[in-house]
Amino acid sequence: MNTYIPGHVTTGPIRGSKKIYTSPQGYPDIRVPFREVALDSSAQEDPIWLYDTSGPYTDPEVIIDLSKGLPKLRASWLARRHLEKVPSPRIIRPEDNGCSRERTSSHPLPPCPAQHTVLMGRADQLITQYELARAGIITEEMIYVAHRENLGRLRAAKKTAKNPKDDPSFTTAIPNYITPEFVRQEIAAGRAIIPANINHPELEPVIIGRNFLVKINANIGNSAVLSSVDEEVEKMVWSIRWGADTVMDLSTGRNIHAIRDWILRNAPIPIGTVPIYQALEKVNGDISKLDWSVFRDTLIEQAEQGVDYFTIHAGVRLQHVPLTAHRVTGIVSRGGSIMASWCLNGHRESFLYEHFEDICDIMRRYDVSFSLGDGLRPGSIADANDAAQFAELETLGELTKIAWDKGCQVMIEGPGHVPMHKIRENMEKQLHDCHEAPFYTLGPLTTDIAPGYDHITSAIGAAMIGWFGTSMLCYVTPKEHLGLPDRNDVKTGVITYRIAAHAADLAKGHPAAQLRDDALSRARFTFRWNDQFNLSLDPDTACAYHDETMPHQTHKSVHFCSMCGPKFCSMRISQDLHENAQRMAGMEQKSEEFRQSGGQVYVTIP
Amino acid sequence: MNTYIPGHVTTGPIRGSKKIYTSPQGYPDIRVPFREVALDSSAQEDPIWLYDTSGPYTDPEVIIDLSKGLPKLRASWLARRHLEKVPSPRIIRPEDNGCSRERTSSHPLPPCPAQHTVLMGRADQLITQYELARAGIITEEMIYVAHRENLGRLRAAKKTAKNPKDDPSFTTAIPNYITPEFVRQEIAAGRAIIPANINHPELEPVIIGRNFLVKINANIGNSAVLSSVDEEVEKMVWSIRWGADTVMDLSTGRNIHAIRDWILRNAPIPIGTVPIYQALEKVNGDISKLDWSVFRDTLIEQAEQGVDYFTIHAGVRLQHVPLTAHRVTGIVSRGGSIMASWCLNGHRESFLYEHFEDICDIMRRYDVSFSLGDGLRPGSIADANDAAQFAELETLGELTKIAWDKGCQVMIEGPGHVPMHKIRENMEKQLHDCHEAPFYTLGPLTTDIAPGYDHITSAIGAAMIGWFGTSMLCYVTPKEHLGLPDRNDVKTGVITYRIAAHAADLAKGHPAAQLRDDALSRARFTFRWNDQFNLSLDPDTACAYHDETMPHQTHKSVHFCSMCGPKFCSMRISQDLHENAQRMAGMEQKSEEFRQSGGQVYVTIP
Repeated sequence: MNTYIPGHVTTGPIRGSKKIYTSPQGYPDIRVPFREVALDSSAQEDPIWLYDTSGPYTDPEVIIDLSKGLPKLRASWLARRHLEKVPSPRIIRPEDNGCSRERTSSHPLPPCPAQHTVLMGRADQLITQYELARAGIITEEMIYVAHRENLGRLRAAKKTAKNPKDDPSFTTAIPNYITPEFVRQEIAAGRAIIPANINHPELEPVIIGRNFLVKINANIGNSAVLSSVDEEVEKMVWSIRWGADTVMDLSTGRNIHAIRDWILRNAPIPIGTVPIYQALEKVNGDISKLDWSVFRDTLIEQAEQGVDYFTIHAGVRLQHVPLTAHRVTGIVSRGGSIMASWCLNGHRESFLYEHFEDICDIMRRYDVSFSLGDGLRPGSIADANDAAQFAELETLGELTKIAWDKGCQVMIEGPGHVPMHKIRENMEKQLHDCHEAPFYTLGPLTTDIAPGYDHITSAIGAAMIGWFGTSMLCYVTPKEHLGLPDRNDVKTGVITYRIAAHAADLAKGHPAAQLRDDALSRARFTFRWNDQFNLSLDPDTACAYHDETMPHQTHKSVHFCSMCGPKFCSMRISQDLHENAQRMAGMEQKSEEFRQSGGQVYVTIP
Repeated sequence: MNTYIPGHVTTGPIRGSKKIYTSPQGYPDIRVPFREVALDSSAQEDPIWLYDTSGPYTDPEVIIDLSKGLPKLRASWLARRHLEKVPSPRIIRPEDNGCSRERTSSHPLPPCPAQHTVLMGRADQLITQYELARAGIITEEMIYVAHRENLGRLRAAKKTAKNPKDDPSFTTAIPNYITPEFVRQEIAAGRAIIPANINHPELEPVIIGRNFLVKINANIGNSAVLSSVDEEVEKMVWSIRWGADTVMDLSTGRNIHAIRDWILRNAPIPIGTVPIYQALEKVNGDISKLDWSVFRDTLIEQAEQGVDYFTIHAGVRLQHVPLTAHRVTGIVSRGGSIMASWCLNGHRESFLYEHFEDICDIMRRYDVSFSLGDGLRPGSIADANDAAQFAELETLGELTKIAWDKGCQVMIEGPGHVPMHKIRENMEKQLHDCHEAPFYTLGPLTTDIAPGYDHITSAIGAAMIGWFGTSMLCYVTPKEHLGLPDRNDVKTGVITYRIAAHAADLAKGHPAAQLRDDALSRARFTFRWNDQFNLSLDPDTACAYHDETMPHQTHKSVHFCSMCGPKFCSMRISQDLHENAQRMAGMEQKSEEFRQSGGQVYVTIP
């Protein structure tokens, strides 16, 4: 058993790009990864750099050994902060893996052999990025994300930078260049967070805030019905390959602790969890035994492991539960339904609410960020923007202030199922009630009638709310409402949400977002098929679709595809026009040339 | 050859529903189809009626024989209008099917043996729905669409009808009940059209206008590289099965006339074409030979066949072409690029523009509706909302007035590639410049970076512009920019656009749109899995996804799925809460009952 290593994970470069690292000026030991797409020489264009979430898995120079974990790139940064080594970290117990009672006889999974030094800040020192930012200190994490976010901005500035902010009512204020000081200010103001547990040294830091690139989260995790650690570690690696900025491990089946261990030691992205799931597992689902002590124990267990953000459903108060009574779909958040049951069971105020300051005190010591859960989010169009949802949002605003006072980083979770005309109200109310803390929404789904396609129903809402100011979009897969997503579903969900996030970045007037669209459009117009594939979110699929009907290598340079064929390709006709009538000045003369050149709209199939 | 019949088309009911017909009060001979979904008896709910585009193919009572064509349900209506039988309809020529010159030796396809009486209105009589509406006449088509659009409204009125129009700036004004007189007024005002060629008696009429349900179009058609009549007829049947309201045959390969013939005689939905494609085929792609006479001949050929609407790119004027010179992607409309080449070739004004009144005179005689093509639509984010695009839109507004003066029905085509923050300007400018004629947009795509997923990049824009007032959304498939869509791509495109259209109907405050969402949400909350599947846009896929992990019949009634498993299903926990604490009044007592009932959040896996 001790030799257990999870199975295959996907490694190697993404088609048509190579991993590069660059350092911010003055910080040679900070190496920030990008993906470089070199274009065909006929383009005479510089390579395009893409934001890269994929971690060392796409770097052919790095040997991946899951049992050893990833390189600890933050270790030296953390060492300089005089954080304390926890003398006796919490010992793993059988119930941490759901192996208590009747289940002990089945095979428990060993944790990842890779070790990290378990750290904890002292009560009297600055620990969190929020505290450091407010004290005027710029951390290595802030320098890292500033460099990472600047992707393409300098290049954009060289060209005619567009910043088409034609809707002044939206509240984003994206600068043309991101300095570490700007990052610090945004974090100090509570408008952005860098989820970065001091026990997650493998992390490549990411910033979440509405004046930065829109981020996306992928949910993974097993359930009691399905899946194993092999699949979950691969799902993590697979989801970041396609662009997930953070990953939540929502496991609720067996081996919760061990699966999380394998994931964390091999995760270059922030990992989020919902600790109440494991707490409930520890008491075998007996709600009457769920209490502060088992929850507190779970927080410490997961904080020591290195989880970067916790969803805490402290906004589900006893008084809110009756507001859900007349809903069409009741309470659809798992954490929300657990806490509502707990409140109702004892007719007591939520222990998460009552112990909120204690929770802050624990999370601060490891710099675990809050993701204040929306336990009463609507689960249907009928329940959108109702009294229960908004009552909870107001409570989350109150808790945000407490968490900030305690020194913690905070983001706020949001719906859910919301028709298009009710989306903007969500964003505006969140900004107001929660004092501009970053918003992190699930979708929202804009209709209920398309199970099997809820990645699409929700991408519509996600793109819109991202434009309006949401900082991170939680993906939805095609399996939503129907079953546990598999690896293909994870990829579809991630790509779909990258679309939503990028569409939002464009609409927000991000100064560099359009560079990639323009490079791809130029490649499309000049029939550089490989460049078009390589610049796309999913080069493998784009190429495969093209090759279904035109598989030969020569087809990668012909001036048409099977959609219109050679005769009716508007791009080809238009490009010929373009070439024949450069700038179309002196049109009489040019039209004569066009006639002399044959005046043929059709060309011959090679 | 004369016995040729296209291969298999998909027939039979859609899973979980049956075809029904009802008649508007007082018109027993007008039979309007719906799909009825009966719910599980435990729901104690009335069956749900769904709008049905699928035609006789889903009616088990109808024997489908492609060579005989569909029943001519409009024949008796048309007979009452004293339209003239064309004494000598145009004879089919080899070049109509691309069989001229070097291509004559290959096998031409015979037309569909099903015949229709070729009709043409007299110059001095009322022919088009627009003319009839303006004369105060309510046609059978108007009565039919009124009944069809009223789907669910009476039921909605019985309940607490919601009409959450919280954005007063949008211009839709959807009544709670649609009368034939309302339809007549909308058509007379030019705000809606019923594309219905008098030579398409098989048509089940559809209304396109912003005060009606949002419609979607599916493009089919072969190219010189791929596809045959078999595939194209099946693509038409397949696309309406999943919800396409109209179908455009964009064939540009061989057998153009014959393929269109088989499609029209078997199409219960309006068929649109772009006649310039066939005109160019007739002159073997030699732009110098393309002229008014060959175009005129093509209009008459297709009008006599029964095409319901023509895309006419008369807005691409000589003076507009230079405006595209600095674009990133030039001209991406096939018709637009052909006409730009024509203008430039001879340095002449477009013959479509110069002969626009002649075109109107022809189209009016058959009641072929205009779809004024946006030949200069942007093909990339970089080119959105530019001078070329808007100059053409202004010309389309001018042409709209001419077409109305001539008695024709008109809609206006729109972009294209547009980032989210520039979409609304398109809608507002279209309404203003084109005098509220219905808008018919392609997407728009909200980013260029996702070839292989452009059904999604465009569904985001389509849902938004539908909400803002677009009447019909032209679908985009996953193969867009990469190849000719196959049958699977067609289905994905149609379902994706049904999502966008329905999301728009919800956001527009359609009084009955939410009935289906609510019925599905109730089914979801009470674990009526089959009801959930049957009410969805794609019952086959929803069920298949569910069954991937939980295939047994008993799994269709259990209170969880594999996503969360039995222990963590929030719906199940929440439903238990609901049942245990009905209305949650007297909460002390209720929480005591919950404790006594076991207080268990977990249940046992059956």
